[in-house]
Amino acid sequence: MSFKITILGSSSALPSYKKFPSAHVINIHERFFLTDCGEGTQIKLRQYKIKVSKINHIFITHLHGDHFFGIFGLISSFNLLGRKNDLHIFSPGDLEKMVYTVIKKADLNFKLYFHRLSTDKKETVYESKSIKISCFPLNHRIETYGFLFEEKKKEKNIQKEAIHKYNLTIKDIIKIKNGDDFLSEDGKTLPNNTLTLPEQKTRSYAYCSDTVFEPKIIPYIKGVSLLYHEATFTEDLKETAQITKHSTAYDAAKIALKAQAEKLIIGHFSSRYKDENLILKEAKTVFKNTFPAEDGLTFNIPIQTIKE
Amino acid sequence: MSFKITILGSSSALPSYKKFPSAHVINIHERFFLTDCGEGTQIKLRQYKIKVSKINHIFITHLHGDHFFGIFGLISSFNLLGRKNDLHIFSPGDLEKMVYTVIKKADLNFKLYFHRLSTDKKETVYESKSIKISCFPLNHRIETYGFLFEEKKKEKNIQKEAIHKYNLTIKDIIKIKNGDDFLSEDGKTLPNNTLTLPEQKTRSYAYCSDTVFEPKIIPYIKGVSLLYHEATFTEDLKETAQITKHSTAYDAAKIALKAQAEKLIIGHFSSRYKDENLILKEAKTVFKNTFPAEDGLTFNIPIQTIKE
Repeated sequence: MSFKITILGSSSALPSYKKFPSAHVINIHERFFLTDCGEGTQIKLRQYKIKVSKINHIFITHLHGDHFFGIFGLISSFNLLGRKNDLHIFSPGDLEKMVYTVIKKADLNFKLYFHRLSTDKKETVYESKSIKISCFPLNHRIETYGFLFEEKKKEKNIQKEAIHKYNLTIKDIIKIKNGDDFLSEDGKTLPNNTLTLPEQKTRSYAYCSDTVFEPKIIPYIKGVSLLYHEATFTEDLKETAQITKHSTAYDAAKIALKAQAEKLIIGHFSSRYKDENLILKEAKTVFKNTFPAEDGLTFNIPIQTIKE
Repeated sequence: MSFKITILGSSSALPSYKKFPSAHVINIHERFFLTDCGEGTQIKLRQYKIKVSKINHIFITHLHGDHFFGIFGLISSFNLLGRKNDLHIFSPGDLEKMVYTVIKKADLNFKLYFHRLSTDKKETVYESKSIKISCFPLNHRIETYGFLFEEKKKEKNIQKEAIHKYNLTIKDIIKIKNGDDFLSEDGKTLPNNTLTLPEQKTRSYAYCSDTVFEPKIIPYIKGVSLLYHEATFTEDLKETAQITKHSTAYDAAKIALKAQAEKLIIGHFSSRYKDENLILKEAKTVFKNTFPAEDGLTFNIPIQTIKE
């Protein structure tokens, strides 16, 4: 069961050939979700051989160009490639108006649904049997949301050999899956964990771009497996960060630490930095398990079992 | 005096990492003109180290996404980079409405002028002391224009030594520059070409994308130094070319031949071709001096003198 994130674009406002503007694709159990869609996203998807047809949901954090100017080309190419599946786009602001001014609605051979985000708290925006996606407000110059992608807690799996060994009925199995212990025919109590497979930790990914240091988001992303948090500047440019409502590497690391994230990715580095190691080093002084975003990198969140 | 064309993007509707969508930059005497502005144009300009600040005029052939979706990112980045110079954008259709729906006019720190093309013949759209740019209608599914970039004919340059040798007055010089012969003090007629430097051929570049085979354009581009003409298909897909209003390689070569172009570039190849040499070969059967467009290629039009 995959849970992996591929970085399509990692630049800040000014892209380069090495760093395209913001876009991450998240593969959860072979369902693909796109978050942000900077200029050239369709080119990167093709370069990294990600099947665009598998993307049915796009989550845009905010309407600054480096986070959504790729949406026009992506929609057009979906259409050219004969897409029939519905496409759902979540974003603040009036992205629908922008899209239908640039692309004729009548030309599209598939249905496009725009979901306008507007909330001051954490809200579920997508839910399936095994996946939940929420948005929560970030603190930037315009209305901006972060997204949390989560696996849902699965019910316990029973050990196959236990079924035969103890002649378990369907009723017994349901009870055990719900966590009950089992009273065998000879009167012995068998603890639940001797009958079930080790429980898997639910995995999660939080995408926080762009935002000034905002501790309000900490409870929303508490215990996240992998956190992406922007780090446009280093602490010596704290004031610029405050004015432009961006974060420093130190800010990003503090959020990761306080949210008890397992791992942190930082990106959206200002193009003024010739040596990006400075930014990484700053974050690592606070949160060791930090990695820099790079176009084309894939971060895999491995399955972990809960030790009882 | 430069006259060179750099291909920023050469793909047809579906771009790849190797081939970005349509965009050419034309350097005439160190003035830079952009024609078409597909998604990722700003990234390519940066990759090929072309000073974006030198671009003040953009010519969009038509409002299909692969020819203009880069305009939003380019304008935004111009703004971020502190541009102050006016920017002129020429295109058919209501590109102005699209741009100002996607980008807030009030956010721009420079003036943007939209020039809406609407003509059924050749028309001058830009003129300076030494450069002329015209548009002319192509024949595509929507309103589409080709562009002709020309050096203007320069007046003759006098040989410096002749001024002293024959004691030429300013009046004499003006007459000679206009092509007159000179009657010397000793009654000899000195032919004009013994007093002037060899005349330079005016150089020109025509950009024709996208269009079905359209012989009406031939008089507009007669004798062009370098012709770019789209060649989306080969002759076996002639019918598809007709339906989609695109050209075959054979069509492009016929236009080059009939227009007496000196050199032909073909591009916009359908992504169905694994071996693009097939397309090139087809064109070469009609017009030998044909070259395939590739992202990053620069075509230089050298100065040639007219032999008298």
